[in-house]
Amino acid sequence: MAVIVQKFGGSSVADAPSIQRVARRICDTKGHGHDVVVVVSAMGDTTDDLLDLANQVSPDPPGRELDMLLTAGERMSMALLAMAIHDLGYEARSYTGSQAGLITDSAHGRARIIDVTPGRIQGALDDGAIAIVAGFQGVSYDSKDVTTLGRGGSDTTAVALAAALDAEVCEIYTDVDGIFTADPRVVSRASKVGRASYEEMLELAAAGAKVLHLRCVEYARRSDIPIHVRSTFSPTEGTWVVADPTAGGTMEQPIIAGVAADLNDAKITIIGVPDRPGEAAAIFRALAVASVNVDMIVQNVSAEATGRTDVTFTCPKGDMARALQALLDAQGSIGFERLTSDEGIAKVSLVGAGMRSHPGVSATFFEALSEADVNVEMISTSEIRISIVTRTESANAALQAVHTAFGLDADGEAVVYAGTGR
Amino acid sequence: MAVIVQKFGGSSVADAPSIQRVARRICDTKGHGHDVVVVVSAMGDTTDDLLDLANQVSPDPPGRELDMLLTAGERMSMALLAMAIHDLGYEARSYTGSQAGLITDSAHGRARIIDVTPGRIQGALDDGAIAIVAGFQGVSYDSKDVTTLGRGGSDTTAVALAAALDAEVCEIYTDVDGIFTADPRVVSRASKVGRASYEEMLELAAAGAKVLHLRCVEYARRSDIPIHVRSTFSPTEGTWVVADPTAGGTMEQPIIAGVAADLNDAKITIIGVPDRPGEAAAIFRALAVASVNVDMIVQNVSAEATGRTDVTFTCPKGDMARALQALLDAQGSIGFERLTSDEGIAKVSLVGAGMRSHPGVSATFFEALSEADVNVEMISTSEIRISIVTRTESANAALQAVHTAFGLDADGEAVVYAGTGR
Repeated sequence: MAVIVQKFGGSSVADAPSIQRVARRICDTKGHGHDVVVVVSAMGDTTDDLLDLANQVSPDPPGRELDMLLTAGERMSMALLAMAIHDLGYEARSYTGSQAGLITDSAHGRARIIDVTPGRIQGALDDGAIAIVAGFQGVSYDSKDVTTLGRGGSDTTAVALAAALDAEVCEIYTDVDGIFTADPRVVSRASKVGRASYEEMLELAAAGAKVLHLRCVEYARRSDIPIHVRSTFSPTEGTWVVADPTAGGTMEQPIIAGVAADLNDAKITIIGVPDRPGEAAAIFRALAVASVNVDMIVQNVSAEATGRTDVTFTCPKGDMARALQALLDAQGSIGFERLTSDEGIAKVSLVGAGMRSHPGVSATFFEALSEADVNVEMISTSEIRISIVTRTESANAALQAVHTAFGLDADGEAVVYAGTGR
Repeated sequence: MAVIVQKFGGSSVADAPSIQRVARRICDTKGHGHDVVVVVSAMGDTTDDLLDLANQVSPDPPGRELDMLLTAGERMSMALLAMAIHDLGYEARSYTGSQAGLITDSAHGRARIIDVTPGRIQGALDDGAIAIVAGFQGVSYDSKDVTTLGRGGSDTTAVALAAALDAEVCEIYTDVDGIFTADPRVVSRASKVGRASYEEMLELAAAGAKVLHLRCVEYARRSDIPIHVRSTFSPTEGTWVVADPTAGGTMEQPIIAGVAADLNDAKITIIGVPDRPGEAAAIFRALAVASVNVDMIVQNVSAEATGRTDVTFTCPKGDMARALQALLDAQGSIGFERLTSDEGIAKVSLVGAGMRSHPGVSATFFEALSEADVNVEMISTSEIRISIVTRTESANAALQAVHTAFGLDADGEAVVYAGTGR
């Protein structure tokens, strides 16, 4: 019997009626003869409420205890969901991350999954029961302490369980119909993506699209688990994320999967870096030691007269102060002249596996930006992505212009987009 | 180093300031050089709120899932308490019942502790940390499912851990100064009991005094763990419950430990029971099969003319319907004539280890009731207790009269009494 893993986010289980609706959806799948494993997040604002409580008690709570506290959230939602399913006449058993065999490292608040041993889940399925698993949490391999997986944790839990149970598909339920070619709050005529590759999803996630989290897509790619992003509220097909989205397709695959903007980065320029071997290594080693998450990097050719060059990179705004300090601390050994920083930037990206085999994609992209009067400050490309950095206030115009230029506009307006929760 | 176990109920950790106050109290004990293990209940109304949620989702939630849900309550309070202690500069680690080694049977909602394996708690103490343990919960031996211990569960958790860790004392913190000779809401001049025996506490608990729960006192007696019931808000000595309260005492031990009333019972009379061997056995077997908790039993001598007698017993009001049905189902084999039931009763008890060696206790008791115009409907005695059944509306007068007659009245008025929570 095929195993189907279904993940429901916090907004899908925000109150008793929502939990009962989700329970009906799950029983529907079970009724069609599937083995069903459900991964669930904490109800609505529970996590934020618990964080508030923690902050009332201590300005700097230890990670171990914060994880213990926050995991109470999924404990509630999963037990309530199991009750609602039971009420519909099916057997359901809820399991914590620890009970479900989600073994992690000990990095509280951002633990990585290192093994999945779903013996109890398989046992529940063998007994004909629906297994409900707490998302976002696990147990550390060495200390046996409760851990949380951090952002995107519940999606990752779902994919990890799907892989360990050799599931047919991992369904990620959300409050929209799937993944869109752009954020419908910005691009009103964004259209639903039917199928996309893992690589395109990775690039879209990295480009700031608030759809699936990077680590969840990475896990799915590594395990070759198809992800189906679909709506909690409608039975229609959503977006399939698979290894080869063209397989079995009868239509020509569209070139572009989507466009996205990311307003969370800052830009730092290191001015007057001596143009000699090992300088870039010294810079990025210093940033890595300070745990700065560097995204785009651009280095201009050096001015011949000075033998010096400028290096510009982007990183999350939250890392900026740490990055500046790390560079200043290393100024003596690197030998640059000075630093500038800029928080007013936006990264706008075009993603699509088709672009490598279609000439003229770059030309169309830059023409669209030019016609929309968008000034380009940095450029970075990969095999399936072009990103530019521009001013924050130009981001929406850039998105709209590129979306239209690549023929992504839908006939009607898209439903309003919302994130998939943690 | 002496281990001290401290238990704090839900009202002691109802909000962030309360949690911080309890944390200071704990750090105080730790600062005096003790190894400290803390057992904590869920915050304030959390348990009731979770039960409300469960009832919104399902009218009859399965016990396994209800336990999973309710145990989220202690998870929150223990993590927050650990954070607050951490903030005061001490190391604290919180543990679920399962992590603390509280192994139970599988009776969800009313599990019994069958073993305590506190390896992780001992490890935390060895590391110099304060261990915080979730009260009221454990893990089942066979299914490894999360269980709850039911009423009095947190007190029992504390005593069980104290026994397993060979603690010097188990301190039960509450919002009054200790155990009183009567409920101060009824008997305004109730006085604090300084020391009492396990047996007296068992009789008081059974008699309806909302102090320590029966099973907690039973566990302490079996393991010979001294219990110290004291106030969260004051450093004064509370009430010690020990094997021999007269040991080391210099004063003469008072005869009477206290008086209590229980308004939660109903009375059932089985009229016209054939007076032959095996009838009582048949009756109480039928009630046991129906899980009816029988308390007092009185059988009158039979009327010679009929060869029949009446049997009267009391049981919790909640068991009454089940008891009546069980008896009706067995009417054919038992052969009684009819049943009457009465929910308007109160049980009033006088408890004290001293009464067996002091003549005249019964006489004083019944004279006091008579002078207060209290009508006695049933009488039952043990070595250290006399109980009567009267009308509900006579209970307070009976309590007050007996309290005064035995010289228990304090000089001033007692602080208002409140229960110790679950």
